[in-house]
Amino acid sequence: MNIIEFWFDFGSNYSYLSMMRIRRAAAAANLRVELKPFMLGPIFKSLGWETSPFVLQTLKGDYVWRDMRRQCVKYGLRWQRPSLFPRNALLAARIALQGEGTSWLEDFCEQVMLVNFADDCEVGDEAVLAGILAGLGADSAEIIAATKTDACKAALRARTADAQARGIFGAPMFFVGDEMFWGNDRLEDAIAYAKTMVTAAGAA
Amino acid sequence: MNIIEFWFDFGSNYSYLSMMRIRRAAAAANLRVELKPFMLGPIFKSLGWETSPFVLQTLKGDYVWRDMRRQCVKYGLRWQRPSLFPRNALLAARIALQGEGTSWLEDFCEQVMLVNFADDCEVGDEAVLAGILAGLGADSAEIIAATKTDACKAALRARTADAQARGIFGAPMFFVGDEMFWGNDRLEDAIAYAKTMVTAAGAA
Repeated sequence: MNIIEFWFDFGSNYSYLSMMRIRRAAAAANLRVELKPFMLGPIFKSLGWETSPFVLQTLKGDYVWRDMRRQCVKYGLRWQRPSLFPRNALLAARIALQGEGTSWLEDFCEQVMLVNFADDCEVGDEAVLAGILAGLGADSAEIIAATKTDACKAALRARTADAQARGIFGAPMFFVGDEMFWGNDRLEDAIAYAKTMVTAAGAA
Repeated sequence: MNIIEFWFDFGSNYSYLSMMRIRRAAAAANLRVELKPFMLGPIFKSLGWETSPFVLQTLKGDYVWRDMRRQCVKYGLRWQRPSLFPRNALLAARIALQGEGTSWLEDFCEQVMLVNFADDCEVGDEAVLAGILAGLGADSAEIIAATKTDACKAALRARTADAQARGIFGAPMFFVGDEMFWGNDRLEDAIAYAKTMVTAAGAA
């Protein structure tokens, strides 16, 4: 089974679109999704930006919210423009990192995105995140405690350093092998590329 | 017949993709294309950028050329990465502005794009542009002479000011009425939107 890596930040609005679409799209193509939460903030800082380009570039920012409304209609997704953008997704990312290999990870990631971009609620809030975990039957107290360890903090820093080393400059970013695809608009292309690799491997 | 406005700069690589696709796509949807050449340079300058963000942001720039190669394969378009980017498209834009309402405009625009992005040749060159015009049966000497008038120069400046007034921050940009769509990836969305407007008008 071939793999599509999905690198995302919970604060990224175009990552929301991909998060809500990738599970079904990858399953239909018989691909396994590897969720790769990382922090976009340090990467933006390394590019000289103190926050999202959608905030820094006001014309583009205005456009993006119009675009998001249309895209959500197109994909049949709920949408509410976040009253705070970008929201701090540090704790959510640490939780997601703890969740690799668990049964709750995908649902958790979708629900965090919905809280931010469909409900316009605070995804940085520990109680909100604990509530999502509990609703999924996960041991929220244990998981939240683990996010406060040095090991977890270091792991997320390492993940973000990995993102940077791979040339990631925005989110969502998809990888199929070494081939990088940027943006929700490239999800279908990434999947199509992964399918050709599967076919080639199967034929070999 | 409803209208889709296509705002572009001859130096813009993603405008190349749209230029080669829009004629057929709009015809299939029974839409008329209005070609709106403008200069992206002054708009980038007003945003504080001395040149294309694909040059200023090297990680994104590297990605963009990889993406262009893949997109051209996907759309069945020829592609050669320009050895000079972005090329100065001032004269080509002035010619296109003279061409509004003529039979040669669409072919001229496609051929200029191909020279830049498929042949990697200098589209700022007067002889190259005169050759394209002559090949299309247009009076190249008269047209080139007209581009040197104050009226033509002022008209292009006015067009670029219009672009800015409409909130254009990049290219390609599509308008259907007041609804703005950014990027080659939104061509299909813009056309779909225009079709719903036609349907609504027809039903009214």
